[in-house]
Amino acid sequence: MSNVQHQVIFDTDPGIDDAMALFLLARHPSVRLRAITAAFGNASVETTARNALALAGFYGIEVPVAAGADSPLQADLRRDFPAHVHGDDALGGMFERLPATRQTLDPRPAHELICDMVNAEPGEITLLAVGPMTNLALALRHDPGIAAKVKQVVVMAGAFGTHGHGGNVTPVAEANVINDPEAADLVFTASWPVVIIGLDVTQETVMKHEYLAALRGKGQGAGDFLWEATRHYQDFYHERDGIGGIYSHDASAAAYLIEPTLFKLRSGPVRVVQDGIARGQTIQDHHKPTGAVTPWSACPAQQACIGVDAAGMLRLFAAAFEE
Amino acid sequence: MSNVQHQVIFDTDPGIDDAMALFLLARHPSVRLRAITAAFGNASVETTARNALALAGFYGIEVPVAAGADSPLQADLRRDFPAHVHGDDALGGMFERLPATRQTLDPRPAHELICDMVNAEPGEITLLAVGPMTNLALALRHDPGIAAKVKQVVVMAGAFGTHGHGGNVTPVAEANVINDPEAADLVFTASWPVVIIGLDVTQETVMKHEYLAALRGKGQGAGDFLWEATRHYQDFYHERDGIGGIYSHDASAAAYLIEPTLFKLRSGPVRVVQDGIARGQTIQDHHKPTGAVTPWSACPAQQACIGVDAAGMLRLFAAAFEE
Repeated sequence: MSNVQHQVIFDTDPGIDDAMALFLLARHPSVRLRAITAAFGNASVETTARNALALAGFYGIEVPVAAGADSPLQADLRRDFPAHVHGDDALGGMFERLPATRQTLDPRPAHELICDMVNAEPGEITLLAVGPMTNLALALRHDPGIAAKVKQVVVMAGAFGTHGHGGNVTPVAEANVINDPEAADLVFTASWPVVIIGLDVTQETVMKHEYLAALRGKGQGAGDFLWEATRHYQDFYHERDGIGGIYSHDASAAAYLIEPTLFKLRSGPVRVVQDGIARGQTIQDHHKPTGAVTPWSACPAQQACIGVDAAGMLRLFAAAFEE
Repeated sequence: MSNVQHQVIFDTDPGIDDAMALFLLARHPSVRLRAITAAFGNASVETTARNALALAGFYGIEVPVAAGADSPLQADLRRDFPAHVHGDDALGGMFERLPATRQTLDPRPAHELICDMVNAEPGEITLLAVGPMTNLALALRHDPGIAAKVKQVVVMAGAFGTHGHGGNVTPVAEANVINDPEAADLVFTASWPVVIIGLDVTQETVMKHEYLAALRGKGQGAGDFLWEATRHYQDFYHERDGIGGIYSHDASAAAYLIEPTLFKLRSGPVRVVQDGIARGQTIQDHHKPTGAVTPWSACPAQQACIGVDAAGMLRLFAAAFEE
């Protein structure tokens, strides 16, 4: 009897915290990774796809890896890549330390791979997206019918302003959303169930210096790799916010999939601001409907995470290094 | 020796909670009201100016009362008046119960009165605004030099998303701001010190049914008047939010002026969203400047209230009825 509960396509822009999330997904018995799809975001899609291939090899994951979008739906609005956060290779300078892999990219663009796999196994596939949502939006455009066939969508994205957490790029916008606000709005307003893991919870869960140091020597090399990869990344966050560690961004979305009871959800339609100074903000209307016609009223309710058992999430992640 | 600490022009759109704020200002020994200026908002400016005159007479306030803006700076974007909240007369049906007054409106438009008074007494005048900020914006346009001559600006406006409070008109926009987002942005970005009392604190301070009932028979008729005027208003809030009372919107701004230690402030430039689904949202950049050029970076730091001693505020307000 299998313990597998989640057949997962991991859509990602690795990225240091993407590498942490992927490790958890690779190791947890409840998850069966089925594919990895890469998008621009923390770096160009050439870099993130290369990183995805190398990380899959390092973690021993044998699944298709496909490259996807290299710019947002509005291509002229692509933002600069955050080399000051993730490093030029988006892995904190550690790409060259990953073993060489003979695996090559799947010939399909990411959104086609997603559509093929979802259509082949309706009701079975979970999309776990931790970068800009461009690949998911392209998949919806390519075949709107997949919305009814995806089991669930879990994304690391957005900021709903609870617990005092605003955005991390502007006062209201989170990076994955502002990297493609149009795609995020399409994903949140489609008729599939979305759970949104935003800064409201990822910034409540800090992996302290000591916590990261304790991973060294564990996880068959992964603990050492992630320790080294997070050195500059930790300096960035500590310099900015004085947290003595790093936020648990993408790993929190993986943790939600595995152990949803660690998180508190709030239900209501979610829209993304497209224009002006609030561009990239996620806004949930979580009040009971009044009958008024608003930008939210015709949209399906989605789930925004507004609370987390941070200690529980950190235990879950660390446990993946013990096996 | 006088106890007067604040020479106040009260800019208002009465409005039930405006009537409560005005009572506190009229009775507290630290405040000397110097003028009342009316704007559209809770009703047309014809109605709010008429109400301001009648309330001044009822409370025994002998100061000029001037009518101001009848529409926002972008006149074609005027919203419907909220008769379902404040009643057709904006006083919960109680206008006809106010005594007749012989006072007539000052011949000047509100913004001219404001400029005249501020220029006559530089450094002395506090502007306390609890409606749309159109009159203040018109005053700034009429004479930008007043910004340097106003002692301070205190406004009831906005929502910064702390304590789980979003907007009260849209998920992110508060009524006074969405009634004139352009004016609000001008006021918040001008070079004068602004303290913003938003839903973050006014919705933390609930005047319960029993609290309002206990005001009856006090305040030389004002307690009975406000009890009656709040009956429908309370039903509206209780139906919507189940609070068993009313929020302390405008009275909280008056209370801040009198007893600022009841409030917790957060410093940073504040901008107002003009376009799209977040129109009317107030956004404060309260992080330390990074040197990046943003819509906030060239604007002066203002103070947003993010915490309140609610019990203390309620004691302060009730005490005004005991004298």
